Amino acid sequence: MTIELYPGERLDDLERNGYKIIQNNKTFCFGMDAVLLSGFAHVKPGEKALDLGTGTGIIPILLKAKTKGEHFTGLEIQEASADMARRSVLYNHLEDQISIVQGDIKEAHTLFDAASFDVITSNPPYMTGNHGLVNPDMPKAIARHEILCTLDDVIGQASKLLRPGGRFYMVHRPFRMAEIMTKMTAHRLEPKRMRLVYPFADKEPNMVLIEGLKGGKPRITVEKPLIVYKEPGVYTDEIYDVYGY
Amino acid sequence: MTIELYPGERLDDLERNGYKIIQNNKTFCFGMDAVLLSGFAHVKPGEKALDLGTGTGIIPILLKAKTKGEHFTGLEIQEASADMARRSVLYNHLEDQISIVQGDIKEAHTLFDAASFDVITSNPPYMTGNHGLVNPDMPKAIARHEILCTLDDVIGQASKLLRPGGRFYMVHRPFRMAEIMTKMTAHRLEPKRMRLVYPFADKEPNMVLIEGLKGGKPRITVEKPLIVYKEPGVYTDEIYDVYGY
Repeated sequence: MTIELYPGERLDDLERNGYKIIQNNKTFCFGMDAVLLSGFAHVKPGEKALDLGTGTGIIPILLKAKTKGEHFTGLEIQEASADMARRSVLYNHLEDQISIVQGDIKEAHTLFDAASFDVITSNPPYMTGNHGLVNPDMPKAIARHEILCTLDDVIGQASKLLRPGGRFYMVHRPFRMAEIMTKMTAHRLEPKRMRLVYPFADKEPNMVLIEGLKGGKPRITVEKPLIVYKEPGVYTDEIYDVYGY
Repeated sequence: MTIELYPGERLDDLERNGYKIIQNNKTFCFGMDAVLLSGFAHVKPGEKALDLGTGTGIIPILLKAKTKGEHFTGLEIQEASADMARRSVLYNHLEDQISIVQGDIKEAHTLFDAASFDVITSNPPYMTGNHGLVNPDMPKAIARHEILCTLDDVIGQASKLLRPGGRFYMVHRPFRMAEIMTKMTAHRLEPKRMRLVYPFADKEPNMVLIEGLKGGKPRITVEKPLIVYKEPGVYTDEIYDVYGY
């Protein structure tokens, strides 16, 4: 089977199981956020996972490579991204383990059965939608700003679709942390584990990784810092590990 | 004027303005938590500050030493601690700038006028009250466990007593972080600034410093890590600075 690459698309090596991913510079390419989330999330043998806003499918593909989960679903609203994700799944011969569904996160509860997933992941838009900084390039804008879905939509839908005791994993920006914790608690996804990602050991963090437990009791473990750079241009060993180099 | 020291009490030098504090090993001595909180809190010239659960008065005394705030009040329920705090205030000749009030945090809204403080600080009990680990030594137990007041009491009362735009500063344990953010948000003390304290750069944090703004909008700044030890037994420069050595 030949997988077609459209103009402007490229095929990137994920350094995991030989998997590759189709991306397009003009739309949205995955970042370190998605890679770190795939390292932070736990998917146990036999579990079913859903990724909300999967883009080109980077998180389901990396979780398939790194875990023994049974099945992975990626939900993506943008047709071009969902199509790239589907072709990447076919390219890697993962069509039995990964499904890509085109649809709206806000309607996820109508697309999937309630309480039908063990794990839900999301690397959602970070920026609030209406402060005038919306990216004029629409596919990137939708991926970065809360135009089509809000933080509350993502967390609310994740809560509906997770089984009791299921786990929610999200990467986001630290400046939204109070909202994240408040909304997770309101939707009964109790924050249980958090890790801050610091570009350098003496700088402010620029990402937060968080795990919630559906129906869990209050008590969160804040893990040791994840430092990205040992010195300018040189990653720490932990970052090289998560990238699989 | 001679200030009496009772049996078991000692007089410790705070290394700030020559101030000293009366403490008793058998009740509760202040820890690094209080010192770090006094370094994290901002009290501007002319402002009035209240410390909820002041113990022996360490936070009002340190804030008087470090800031140009106009007046500081410490509220403490335990008579012996409040008495030590009052004698420390007299010893340091601070009776015009610091008031110690004996009373219950839960009743603070009946002891002080609503919206009458610019700044409220608290180093409250960290542990939930009813899991069987309550310290049999009652003064220490009251300081460490939520026996006489809960996190919700502290935050709710702080919100009532702060003016609009006033600031709340608290030190707590990271494992309570999700509850802290949820309750602060519920009481309209929007979390605006947070710093995690890590004993070592590669270990989990053991304290969280947080600032809330009465009536603020969501957006929190997570600051660079505060590392306590450079190597075992040797503080980092930042810790020496906050202690004033």
